[in-house]
Amino acid sequence: MRMDELVKFAPRPTGAGEMFQLLRDGQPRTRSDLATVTGQSRSTIAARVDLLLASGYIAPAGEASSTGGRPPATFAFNPAARVVLAVDLGATHSRLAVTDLAGRVLAEHGEPIAIGEGPDPVLERVVELGHRLLAASGRPLDDLVSVGVGLPGPVEHSTGRPINPPIMPGWDDADVPGLLGRRLHVPVLVDNDVNLMALGEHATQWSTVDDLLFVKVATGIGAGIISDGALRRGAQGAAGDIGHVAVPGGPELPCRCGNTGCLEAVASGPAIAAALRTLDVSADASGDVVALVRAGDLAASRLVREAGRHIGEVLAACVSVLNPSVIVIGGHVAESGEHLIAGIREVVYRRSLPLATQHLRIVASRTGAAAGVRGASAMAAEHVLSAAAIDALIT
Amino acid sequence: MRMDELVKFAPRPTGAGEMFQLLRDGQPRTRSDLATVTGQSRSTIAARVDLLLASGYIAPAGEASSTGGRPPATFAFNPAARVVLAVDLGATHSRLAVTDLAGRVLAEHGEPIAIGEGPDPVLERVVELGHRLLAASGRPLDDLVSVGVGLPGPVEHSTGRPINPPIMPGWDDADVPGLLGRRLHVPVLVDNDVNLMALGEHATQWSTVDDLLFVKVATGIGAGIISDGALRRGAQGAAGDIGHVAVPGGPELPCRCGNTGCLEAVASGPAIAAALRTLDVSADASGDVVALVRAGDLAASRLVREAGRHIGEVLAACVSVLNPSVIVIGGHVAESGEHLIAGIREVVYRRSLPLATQHLRIVASRTGAAAGVRGASAMAAEHVLSAAAIDALIT
Repeated sequence: MRMDELVKFAPRPTGAGEMFQLLRDGQPRTRSDLATVTGQSRSTIAARVDLLLASGYIAPAGEASSTGGRPPATFAFNPAARVVLAVDLGATHSRLAVTDLAGRVLAEHGEPIAIGEGPDPVLERVVELGHRLLAASGRPLDDLVSVGVGLPGPVEHSTGRPINPPIMPGWDDADVPGLLGRRLHVPVLVDNDVNLMALGEHATQWSTVDDLLFVKVATGIGAGIISDGALRRGAQGAAGDIGHVAVPGGPELPCRCGNTGCLEAVASGPAIAAALRTLDVSADASGDVVALVRAGDLAASRLVREAGRHIGEVLAACVSVLNPSVIVIGGHVAESGEHLIAGIREVVYRRSLPLATQHLRIVASRTGAAAGVRGASAMAAEHVLSAAAIDALIT
Repeated sequence: MRMDELVKFAPRPTGAGEMFQLLRDGQPRTRSDLATVTGQSRSTIAARVDLLLASGYIAPAGEASSTGGRPPATFAFNPAARVVLAVDLGATHSRLAVTDLAGRVLAEHGEPIAIGEGPDPVLERVVELGHRLLAASGRPLDDLVSVGVGLPGPVEHSTGRPINPPIMPGWDDADVPGLLGRRLHVPVLVDNDVNLMALGEHATQWSTVDDLLFVKVATGIGAGIISDGALRRGAQGAAGDIGHVAVPGGPELPCRCGNTGCLEAVASGPAIAAALRTLDVSADASGDVVALVRAGDLAASRLVREAGRHIGEVLAACVSVLNPSVIVIGGHVAESGEHLIAGIREVVYRRSLPLATQHLRIVASRTGAAAGVRGASAMAAEHVLSAAAIDALIT
């Protein structure tokens, strides 16, 4: 790209967006603090503080203590300045929230959906619920700055379009950002549900951990990867798609993908339910499996633990490849309690090298069913809080 | 950390380091170009240009064309401003180079070593060769700004210390940066050889690719991961350590780690040589295997291809986890030609989902035995070219 073209597309940074990044930790600072840290002149800092105050993204935070004379004013990030709409769409259930820019929930709603009805009716309902949640939050549409959407299938993150999603008939290549953006007039970010669960768990529970793997065990099995503090999506957004990895030493069961012995074919909720049926125990879905384990059914508990071991075989490989310090196990099947994680731990700690496991924690999700909507909120907020976004806003 | 402590440790940025990042692409720019792109005042830009010119990191690059009046001067990154020492230490061979800041080799040397002699004699020799290579480059010691070192074992990157390296007796927890830094008086960065091979291949051959996996197949098997454009080391620097991942469907051969069926136990150079010996073919090491394949030995070719299939089983899992767009196969065994990659491709394309493989390329290393030293140069140069490093230098 030639210089003059580059100039045409780049917003002129005022430096305010970058200074704002320092304030995102929420700590109050004086103009003098900011001048000291950035090495910039008091007049430059004062101009930037004025721009940010006018935008509402920072707000007065009282007076600093003074060694004499008039105490200086302090400023801090004001997460209440704007709101985002967070949308988690599953195969049969949706969960939406209006949150502030720090992920604080102002209004929330969940209801059954049928994702297979296609994008038009489903997204129409999202728009309707979005307006209702804004009203319930007491915030006007003008305060909405972005929307984050999670979908239960592969998504090309750069365009926000689903790519051949197996359980979402009618959604292939649907312009989700366009369909929602035309109605809500703000940027719309889209990702798959597992990536957003990883983001949600990381942002709300493990923000000081740089390397985290989130594993969803439900109808399907998938993972979201946080590496060096950020979500890694890979070249086509397919990173973490571990459901069709072959399980070392696992049974050679046929998989819907055409291969045999895939992780989903041997350890997903439906796979456990199918194994229970061969023992004449009635179980149709992940929910039945969880209910049986919770009721103390020994066969169900044993099969969930065995599924954990198969998942552990694949996660042992993930530990060798990624060297995370935390693995979070989420999804419906994880709600059955300790049996799943016990099976996973057993194999991961036996199969991986000591250097990679000595500080490794394998834990249950703390955000549970809210992981996805928390992640959608974090993704939407991040989009408007970057240095470039703040500069574009206030220029 | 309190604000006053933060201030104590942070260099006062002049903004020159950040402006320098714009110039790292090597394109000549005028002061006016820089003012336009950054949105900063001409006087601010002029001051920063003066600081960078004085440092030598940018240099005059002729005059821009003019629409009238005196044509304005242009400036560009000057990679010849300083030099780095790149050191690749293997078990039995070393390779060292003095390069400029763009990785251009000014002087290079390789010789046999015995890494097991321990850090003192080996690093003493590195210092001696470093001085000789500087002299051969015609550059004084004062021009040296950093050293990059690759070691054949696990390294804690933050401290530069080897961690229980299996083939480096006497090196456990050795203070490599301290030992070299006290003699050469510059920062010393240390990483394992595979990470540096990944960096070297990426920096010199695939710099526009964001997601790349480099796989070394030699006495051991390991990988280096480039994700979103940067090397990912994981929580303990052990990311990419795939040698002890269980091969799905592979033979249950015992491994030196205590487990069975590890990738190294079934597909490394020594494993292929052992399999050849069971066929009464004399082969002691990776080099023998490569020589046999090159000589057209059918058993060796078949076994190398079979090793490729085992590696492909593990790489199929890596493809699902990481979704790279390029996999580069390097290391001694890869020098045997197409058989190894053919086996790898066969399994990866069969075992991975179409979304992850449709744009995936699996290729042989182009830098070959120079990958490590190129990566050591890239790591050392990056350390001194970041915005913070440039600011610290010129303040």
